Amino acid sequence: MPKEFEIIDYFRSQSCGSGEYIETGPGDDMAVMNINSQRLLVTTDMLLDGVHFDSTTTDLTRIGYKAMATSLSDCAAMCSRPVGCVAAISLPRHYNMKEITSLHNGFKMASQQYNCPIIGGDMTSWDKDLTLTVTMFSIMENSRQPIYRHGAQPGDKIMVTGQLGGSILGRHLDFTPRINEAIWLYDHCKLHAMMDISDGIGGDLRHICRESRVSALLYGEQVPISPSAHELGGNPLLHALTDGEDFELLFTVKASDAERLLSIWPQFSSEKLSIIGEIIPVAEELIYLKNNGETTPFTQTGYEH
Amino acid sequence: MPKEFEIIDYFRSQSCGSGEYIETGPGDDMAVMNINSQRLLVTTDMLLDGVHFDSTTTDLTRIGYKAMATSLSDCAAMCSRPVGCVAAISLPRHYNMKEITSLHNGFKMASQQYNCPIIGGDMTSWDKDLTLTVTMFSIMENSRQPIYRHGAQPGDKIMVTGQLGGSILGRHLDFTPRINEAIWLYDHCKLHAMMDISDGIGGDLRHICRESRVSALLYGEQVPISPSAHELGGNPLLHALTDGEDFELLFTVKASDAERLLSIWPQFSSEKLSIIGEIIPVAEELIYLKNNGETTPFTQTGYEH
Repeated sequence: MPKEFEIIDYFRSQSCGSGEYIETGPGDDMAVMNINSQRLLVTTDMLLDGVHFDSTTTDLTRIGYKAMATSLSDCAAMCSRPVGCVAAISLPRHYNMKEITSLHNGFKMASQQYNCPIIGGDMTSWDKDLTLTVTMFSIMENSRQPIYRHGAQPGDKIMVTGQLGGSILGRHLDFTPRINEAIWLYDHCKLHAMMDISDGIGGDLRHICRESRVSALLYGEQVPISPSAHELGGNPLLHALTDGEDFELLFTVKASDAERLLSIWPQFSSEKLSIIGEIIPVAEELIYLKNNGETTPFTQTGYEH
Repeated sequence: MPKEFEIIDYFRSQSCGSGEYIETGPGDDMAVMNINSQRLLVTTDMLLDGVHFDSTTTDLTRIGYKAMATSLSDCAAMCSRPVGCVAAISLPRHYNMKEITSLHNGFKMASQQYNCPIIGGDMTSWDKDLTLTVTMFSIMENSRQPIYRHGAQPGDKIMVTGQLGGSILGRHLDFTPRINEAIWLYDHCKLHAMMDISDGIGGDLRHICRESRVSALLYGEQVPISPSAHELGGNPLLHALTDGEDFELLFTVKASDAERLLSIWPQFSSEKLSIIGEIIPVAEELIYLKNNGETTPFTQTGYEH
């Protein structure tokens, strides 16, 4: 099987046209449509049993919540506000109303928390696995502009919200989509590039570098390592850089903004905010890791399903 | 497992709120958003291996085409014009570029034919089945209004495009979404209610009756039975009324419009157009079948996966 990014590259290279209502096609956290001068953003995320969750050990409510929250995190990555979603679900045939109610409760929880109505859907039962696809729509409020992956500039500081690594111990199901955080950041500095961390920084920062035609230097000692990354054993820093599904914000701002954000952030949130590296003027989308005084190329690409 | 419509009813009854951008939520062929006074319609359809197609016997190009065409048929059902879509695909891990290219070719074919760019997507490989979810957006052109399922009136004639039944022999993969036909109909009469036939008339006409609070009388002799329904053996009329995935238009208009449509339709299309029944003023959403001079309740609900 070719690597996922090769397949995605193929699909993008074989672009199926553009259209008068399309402002930005594939390649960022969300596509952007333009409907009567109002931007409508869209993202679609498919969650599969055994890949993104394990239905034999996990409550269906948490699975339903995750299905919505994954797309909500994409809304955050663009600094947009969700306005609605549709869900397509394949249900194992042995499910009864009990299972269906549990699943729905998870959807409902996320829907209510983020004011994002479920406006349509498709449901089919079959003999196989539970799969959930959520497609979500969002808008840019108050004339904000979407924040893309391609705006990183040499000299920018690279920042992240929260703590990274070890989400597999539970946080990948219960995380908080950083919608309010993203909008707060937008309103307190000039965001150059942003995305949410779904595949680990090793993979995701590479997207920012690639789209921005720059490279990055990571400060190993400043990466916020989550307690779960320590709990997992092995190399906690490696967990923090390559484990998937942190769903935190990864963004770049100019150095002076970065320092200012660090000083005012605690008035807004009790979550961590960290400077974890800088953008360097090398077009080849390389990532270097500076750790214990030594700088080495960091070639791990993050979590691949 | 509860019946699919019970599950869907449950989800609808547990509605997850409405929103200022939502004009019509779940329950029709598409949901309707309102973005700056421009309607944007949305539908999501999930296709599963072994349920909606069989990847062991069917070319992947036809499967990709069907994934798009199923949603395009929903656009037709509302009299809307597609403007873009997103696709989420789970790929069996043993697929190589050959399979991926075939699949993509099918998407591309439908995308180009209906001027509907693929603006984003999600793709994950796993050890299990191919599944495809397409979420499609459309607009109402030239101030047309969406045609819903709820407008059928007593005395209306019930009409269908094309021929019904036996799609399993191949047509369920190669059908033509009736977008141009729907818009032509809109522009030549007052459509009262419309939907596309995905589960067979037995199931789908019931939706129109239910949403419109009426009942229906089918004229058995006038149902256009496709050659494949005959080929399948058994009762061809029953095939035509209950086989799934015809993806033809099912609609109601007043009797005088129905006759007029029959007379002018041949100038527009070489497909069949038929009057197959009438709407009767009984609120209990019953369907009667008049055949060989005998009228009996028709209780088959159509194809359930």
